[in-house]
Amino acid sequence: MADRVVRRIPEPTVVRLPVYQRALLTLSTCGVQTVSSAELAEAAGVNAAKVRKDLSHLGTYGTPGTGYDVSFLLGQVRRELGLDREWQVVIVGMGNLGHALARSQTFATQNFRAAALFDIDPGKIGEEVAGLPVRHVCELAKVVGGISRSIGVIASPASAAQDVCNRLVEAGTVAILNFAPAILAVPPSVQLRQVDFSVELQVLAFYVAHPEVTPEPQDAPLSGL
Amino acid sequence: MADRVVRRIPEPTVVRLPVYQRALLTLSTCGVQTVSSAELAEAAGVNAAKVRKDLSHLGTYGTPGTGYDVSFLLGQVRRELGLDREWQVVIVGMGNLGHALARSQTFATQNFRAAALFDIDPGKIGEEVAGLPVRHVCELAKVVGGISRSIGVIASPASAAQDVCNRLVEAGTVAILNFAPAILAVPPSVQLRQVDFSVELQVLAFYVAHPEVTPEPQDAPLSGL
Repeated sequence: MADRVVRRIPEPTVVRLPVYQRALLTLSTCGVQTVSSAELAEAAGVNAAKVRKDLSHLGTYGTPGTGYDVSFLLGQVRRELGLDREWQVVIVGMGNLGHALARSQTFATQNFRAAALFDIDPGKIGEEVAGLPVRHVCELAKVVGGISRSIGVIASPASAAQDVCNRLVEAGTVAILNFAPAILAVPPSVQLRQVDFSVELQVLAFYVAHPEVTPEPQDAPLSGL
Repeated sequence: MADRVVRRIPEPTVVRLPVYQRALLTLSTCGVQTVSSAELAEAAGVNAAKVRKDLSHLGTYGTPGTGYDVSFLLGQVRRELGLDREWQVVIVGMGNLGHALARSQTFATQNFRAAALFDIDPGKIGEEVAGLPVRHVCELAKVVGGISRSIGVIASPASAAQDVCNRLVEAGTVAILNFAPAILAVPPSVQLRQVDFSVELQVLAFYVAHPEVTPEPQDAPLSGL
């Protein structure tokens, strides 16, 4: 039954769940016990109707006049996001971007653990970043093959991205986040997302060039909405 | 009339336009003159029906049996994206991420120019990155105020992001791309997008945890779709 509810969650809602999660974490840390949809909306930078609709996809409706129980809702959102287990993040490409990602606050605050770092440049192999040694990419299959629930992060140049992607897939990585400006091919069983600086700038340029198209002025559009 | 057509372009289509643009640029560079929706779909990593629907939003339908004229379509997509003019990109926060962004290939291949770099750390001021000096953020109003069509990129820690955002808005920046893990408030006249490493990992974790929800298996999901 739970699966049938989940099946209908639209992707824009999925992309907002991490934002609610962060807002709820902050509220929880501050000792707040209940939150209205309007308050959660403000903390998450979306409108209140959207919050109520998004949370209804989780089967959560809050109590009229009181709102949502912060700690219950936080647990529910984290479970939906798969954050009730630990994920091992493998970063390939240890240039400036790889360094920034390896040192991300994400690894301190969520159930994501930086598990292994790789590069192909002999000058970088053995360097220690965020407490981990940078390994040669030829070790990837061995190291990542021994990790369960791994997420691969590609921070290599575009020209190397498909090769890196193939190595991650062959090593059993179940999800890949690609920062290289290249369209990658993966088997259907592997989840792939792409973050592209150039695409983001172009989308901004589009909306500045066409101010009449602004999608939803009440929202702070998050990439992925 | 053109505006009335544009007004109906859905955001997922807007986010795919840069992907089509890149695919068309590659085809054009290779001397290809016409392209079918199936070929363009493959190059862009989406399905052909989606390509046809997306391009119909631009009023472009191609010629049955022949497909789309590559150079005409490329010009049209670039105009829609506002890439027929130059955009000045200002990066604030010159840690590893700021360095990676300043050196991005984006600035070599599109009409985006890295115009100014800022940090608050005295140790970084005066350093040269990608041919530009890093300036103190207290110079931001003066420098950015003199730039037209500026896009601000926030690569600062989350704790400084709203302050940086306010400075950019006061200096007249029309669009902001925020890489800091913080929800920012901007006036409705400013376009804001957010790229968040943690959100991307969580969305991937969600889809791995719920394999039955995979949104559109034929597509390589791009952040923002």
